[in-house]
Amino acid sequence: MTVPDTAGQAAAGGGARRVTIRDVADRAGVSVATVSRVLAGNYPTSAAARAKVLRAVKDLDYVIDGRARALAGTGPKTIAVIVSSVDSAFYATVAQGVEQEAAARGRLCMVCSHGGDEARELALVQMMREQRSEFVVLVGGAVEDERYQARLAEYAHGLAAAGSRLVLCGRPAPSADMPVLVVEYDNEAGAYAVVSHLLSAGHRDILYLGTMPGHTTVEPRIAGYRRALADHGLPPAAERIAGVGLGRSHGYAAMRQILADCDGRPAFTAVFAGDDQAAAGAMAAMREYGLRTPDDISVVGYNNDGLAQDLNPPLTTVNIPAYELGREAVRLALTESSPRPTTQSRHLLGTHTVLRDSVRRLS
Amino acid sequence: MTVPDTAGQAAAGGGARRVTIRDVADRAGVSVATVSRVLAGNYPTSAAARAKVLRAVKDLDYVIDGRARALAGTGPKTIAVIVSSVDSAFYATVAQGVEQEAAARGRLCMVCSHGGDEARELALVQMMREQRSEFVVLVGGAVEDERYQARLAEYAHGLAAAGSRLVLCGRPAPSADMPVLVVEYDNEAGAYAVVSHLLSAGHRDILYLGTMPGHTTVEPRIAGYRRALADHGLPPAAERIAGVGLGRSHGYAAMRQILADCDGRPAFTAVFAGDDQAAAGAMAAMREYGLRTPDDISVVGYNNDGLAQDLNPPLTTVNIPAYELGREAVRLALTESSPRPTTQSRHLLGTHTVLRDSVRRLS
Repeated sequence: MTVPDTAGQAAAGGGARRVTIRDVADRAGVSVATVSRVLAGNYPTSAAARAKVLRAVKDLDYVIDGRARALAGTGPKTIAVIVSSVDSAFYATVAQGVEQEAAARGRLCMVCSHGGDEARELALVQMMREQRSEFVVLVGGAVEDERYQARLAEYAHGLAAAGSRLVLCGRPAPSADMPVLVVEYDNEAGAYAVVSHLLSAGHRDILYLGTMPGHTTVEPRIAGYRRALADHGLPPAAERIAGVGLGRSHGYAAMRQILADCDGRPAFTAVFAGDDQAAAGAMAAMREYGLRTPDDISVVGYNNDGLAQDLNPPLTTVNIPAYELGREAVRLALTESSPRPTTQSRHLLGTHTVLRDSVRRLS
Repeated sequence: MTVPDTAGQAAAGGGARRVTIRDVADRAGVSVATVSRVLAGNYPTSAAARAKVLRAVKDLDYVIDGRARALAGTGPKTIAVIVSSVDSAFYATVAQGVEQEAAARGRLCMVCSHGGDEARELALVQMMREQRSEFVVLVGGAVEDERYQARLAEYAHGLAAAGSRLVLCGRPAPSADMPVLVVEYDNEAGAYAVVSHLLSAGHRDILYLGTMPGHTTVEPRIAGYRRALADHGLPPAAERIAGVGLGRSHGYAAMRQILADCDGRPAFTAVFAGDDQAAAGAMAAMREYGLRTPDDISVVGYNNDGLAQDLNPPLTTVNIPAYELGREAVRLALTESSPRPTTQSRHLLGTHTVLRDSVRRLS
């Protein structure tokens, strides 16, 4: 087979003969099998052999024909991660965990984002199915309506039928019969614990900030907030839930509106923001009204983003094991998927409260 | 052609006939050409037609055979972004810009990280060349030694020969004859401006924190620092350069060491940290020694990460147009690459100082 447009020929100045794997092996002084293993990237090889082969591949500018490899099913093994946005600390940290565990296991990892666009998400899953990704990891929550459930079921069955697998990371499976691997964190318990911390410090008027109706990430946080209030003997009327959306700008705008509505004299003594970014926004809005954290109002967040420790004051928040979620997803998918990819498997990682300086004990 | 393992059949319960593009067109009530356009994703189609086709694709669980598509060259057009780490605000924001501009132009985007591993970077570039990515964007700086220059030249020529193109985003080209598209920001000028701001506020003893010898991102920042000092009439002896590495932990450790060495009484009155994360770490270390920002020591950073505005106090820093770098890279690559992909093209975006509350004017 002659491939006239391969890079090898162009870089070599138009030589007529295509560089073969045999040429690479000869140059590197190793066997063809070793070259194949190094290039496939999914077998253990010695660092020395790897270096020699990679040097020879570079020297000869050897290009394995991707189309031929795809037909033969001998391309590098890949793992795909699909997120809503790469520009978020949580998604990026999970993706980092997936990437590093994938690297340790000789896989290449691709991260794709859809920006909340359903058609784009579908196109990405299709592409990964076509490219024979070993598995496809969907990260983070979503608004779980019927349409979403149907979409997810189609992804799961479609990938399973293609010999791949759908992995849900940080979100629940809509139904127990969906053939997916689920790696979650204990979202509701994290909220329960941090609200209990506020209650233990004497707070009784606690605002929850940042709703997203039907959203799989936000609903358990509100549920944990409610359960903590109830368990501490507070009536349902004690619940204060406000603001739509997470993130800094939503937290800032919601808190500004709340403070404008009460002339800067809120009835609550503490705020549980749905994520650390919303907490940062809320704290900025409070500063504009001369309200200090925690002297005037205590604030807690969720996620334990890198940001949290450097806020003013450092923020008490709920730690999500984001990096471990990514690593566990890869580890479990690779050890579990081969025997029975058509069943569901669910794993839950723990959350805990990180105590810093943003909560005041009421006397 | 029969493909016995396609998802369509499995989901349909084992029906014998493969779903064809004609079936999708019939179901959607549009032409085969329209289905083809919607699925290729690179031609304008009406939202209504798109919705109908996507619905039909889902209903029938139509799977275009990826191997056949690759052979025919009719797969979706893809853009690849290769970064050192997805877990960094700068890389993630650039990737977000690439992704959103790619989406607006009907391309799918993949982000891959190599964690600083050369062999992995090579494997990723090879994979993208094989998958016929329209172009491959390398984001961020690197230590520019001979080995690196040779590697980059190989990527550039290899991709160009395969009809693709190498795009360097936020890093310079090692040589003017390399067939790459370069989209940079004015790194040195940003450093010059923020150090000039410190000098104008009366500071004469300014520490630069965070070196990385030979690194294309860090060297221009130090050069800008030096030029600003010289232009304000300070002798070379006024230069104070310390600490190795950027990021929060390096900034924290370096500042702790410096303060330990001088018993918490530094001779400098201001710190220019190589990035905002290093500034955050340095400020945390200074707090531990009872030094306040900016009352005792002024601090400025670089990048204008999301973090900078919420530091204590909010940080004066240099804004990098990270999102615009990503968007411009896609825009320029798509408009420029077709006619002459073998020449170099270079574009420079501006930087500016964002003034906040971390600099004190000396009396």
